[in-house]
Amino acid sequence: MAGRPLPSWREGAARSTILGWLDRATGPGPGHVPLVDRVAVFDNDGTLWTERPTYTQALFIADRLRAAAAVDAGLAADPVLQALLTGGLGAAMAHGLDALAGLVLKAQAGMTADAFLADARSWFTTSRHPSGRPYPATVYQPMLELLDLLRSHDFRSFIVTGGGVEFVRAVSWPLYGIPPADVIGTAVQLRLERHDGRAELVREAAFDGPPNEGAPKAVNIHRHIGQRPVIAVGNSDGDREMLEYVATGEPPGLCLLLEHDDPEREDVYGSRSVTTDPDGEPVGTVARRSGWTVISMRSDWTQVFPAAPS
Amino acid sequence: MAGRPLPSWREGAARSTILGWLDRATGPGPGHVPLVDRVAVFDNDGTLWTERPTYTQALFIADRLRAAAAVDAGLAADPVLQALLTGGLGAAMAHGLDALAGLVLKAQAGMTADAFLADARSWFTTSRHPSGRPYPATVYQPMLELLDLLRSHDFRSFIVTGGGVEFVRAVSWPLYGIPPADVIGTAVQLRLERHDGRAELVREAAFDGPPNEGAPKAVNIHRHIGQRPVIAVGNSDGDREMLEYVATGEPPGLCLLLEHDDPEREDVYGSRSVTTDPDGEPVGTVARRSGWTVISMRSDWTQVFPAAPS
Repeated sequence: MAGRPLPSWREGAARSTILGWLDRATGPGPGHVPLVDRVAVFDNDGTLWTERPTYTQALFIADRLRAAAAVDAGLAADPVLQALLTGGLGAAMAHGLDALAGLVLKAQAGMTADAFLADARSWFTTSRHPSGRPYPATVYQPMLELLDLLRSHDFRSFIVTGGGVEFVRAVSWPLYGIPPADVIGTAVQLRLERHDGRAELVREAAFDGPPNEGAPKAVNIHRHIGQRPVIAVGNSDGDREMLEYVATGEPPGLCLLLEHDDPEREDVYGSRSVTTDPDGEPVGTVARRSGWTVISMRSDWTQVFPAAPS
Repeated sequence: MAGRPLPSWREGAARSTILGWLDRATGPGPGHVPLVDRVAVFDNDGTLWTERPTYTQALFIADRLRAAAAVDAGLAADPVLQALLTGGLGAAMAHGLDALAGLVLKAQAGMTADAFLADARSWFTTSRHPSGRPYPATVYQPMLELLDLLRSHDFRSFIVTGGGVEFVRAVSWPLYGIPPADVIGTAVQLRLERHDGRAELVREAAFDGPPNEGAPKAVNIHRHIGQRPVIAVGNSDGDREMLEYVATGEPPGLCLLLEHDDPEREDVYGSRSVTTDPDGEPVGTVARRSGWTVISMRSDWTQVFPAAPS
């Protein structure tokens, strides 16, 4: 950590809040956080990597479904797959993300967990994002710096994604320096198959619990981590409960919300996601009302994406 | 790690197998294990701490049920609780561990996750084991040394327990140096309660999935860790699938089975647990047939329990 910390962050409220909080957390005075409690949680889509023009995992799923349809006439006959083949990903997603997810679950049922990881890793390193960038260059450079800074202060950072946990685990270590065990996400059911003393885990065509968005994020954080984190970073309504859970700590944790307000370098869109809160209050409003720290992509970051593939 | 590694382990096949394996894993030649793959899994009851005369968690549950019965006449009327109050823990456990677990789930429903952790921690540090020892002195000293040795070789060790994940997490850090996030176990359902912007996790009176024994151990290892461990340590039939899963790695992982064969210092009992394998082969037989490393408590350990409360 030689040089100025958070080099891609402009001087301003967001950067100084983070640095001041970390100073207190790692110093001996009030606000000190013991080593075992140094736990941070990060949303992934739209928080650590871009979700524009669409979710990275949807692009992976589309590629794999096109390949599967070429060899499986039954699958190819599905109307959602027909929409994908003839109208592209946008047309397929008009049927809902659930329909697409259900199709790929069916196509990948019976695959071993190890084979899935290898396949996702290979896709991620050899494909190109619609922007033309390689995928490792679609992460946010300032967030990589925040992860590094937290690591250097003995924080353990977990990814808490609405996306597939297996998909994100396939790349979390080379991409973020986060081991697979520190990724929490939407999961697929697995069964153990044993033959002749060999034991393999195989994917089923069903989800293992509800999507990891909204209240399930807070519940799954506790199921997985077993303690309340002291830092939460998100960008959408699906992150609200996770942020509230961290804000309810004693003392309240550090809550950061990334605002996508940068038409030049990324996109401008509100903080409303497909998962909406029953009381209908957007997380951006909640953040401002609650005194959470809002990060403006446009104002707070001098650089959005890594200069070269990381 | 100054001095002789594994100081409470006698010279012998078990100790030299472990040390030789670690030398290869951390050396540059064949058998090298990259940093991100240095993952070990340990059963808890009978592997890291004693399960004699009975499960530690059963003793905790009995204490808490006695207290709850004193203030809840409805609970006190339950026949299992009557058995506990009049005949002691043995009489209550004759109704099955499930009945006892169901009762305590009911008694603790509505408790926050944080309050449960604090309560379990307090019990563990202030109560006495039937042997008269404080609970921190009921762990196996040689296993603490193995955990230390693995840590010094950049391995991350997870506990994979059939016991309650919350109960073991309450003490895993002070006891083993294992953070709560690295404990996998039988879990209780939680719900998120939100009032006035505060978010708390509350216990439900239901389990979250099947007991973490047998095949679920392998499945839950992957759900939680996301990769196949390279070391597994267990002692009972409930650990068989976890050991087989690690043995199926490429190259096969290091599989260790602790044999309770020490009548002087602990107890003598077979490796059969309540969870029995459909084909009925005891894990001790599987271990010998498969070439796993069997640890004899009597022959391989110079010391079983810490000399003083750790």
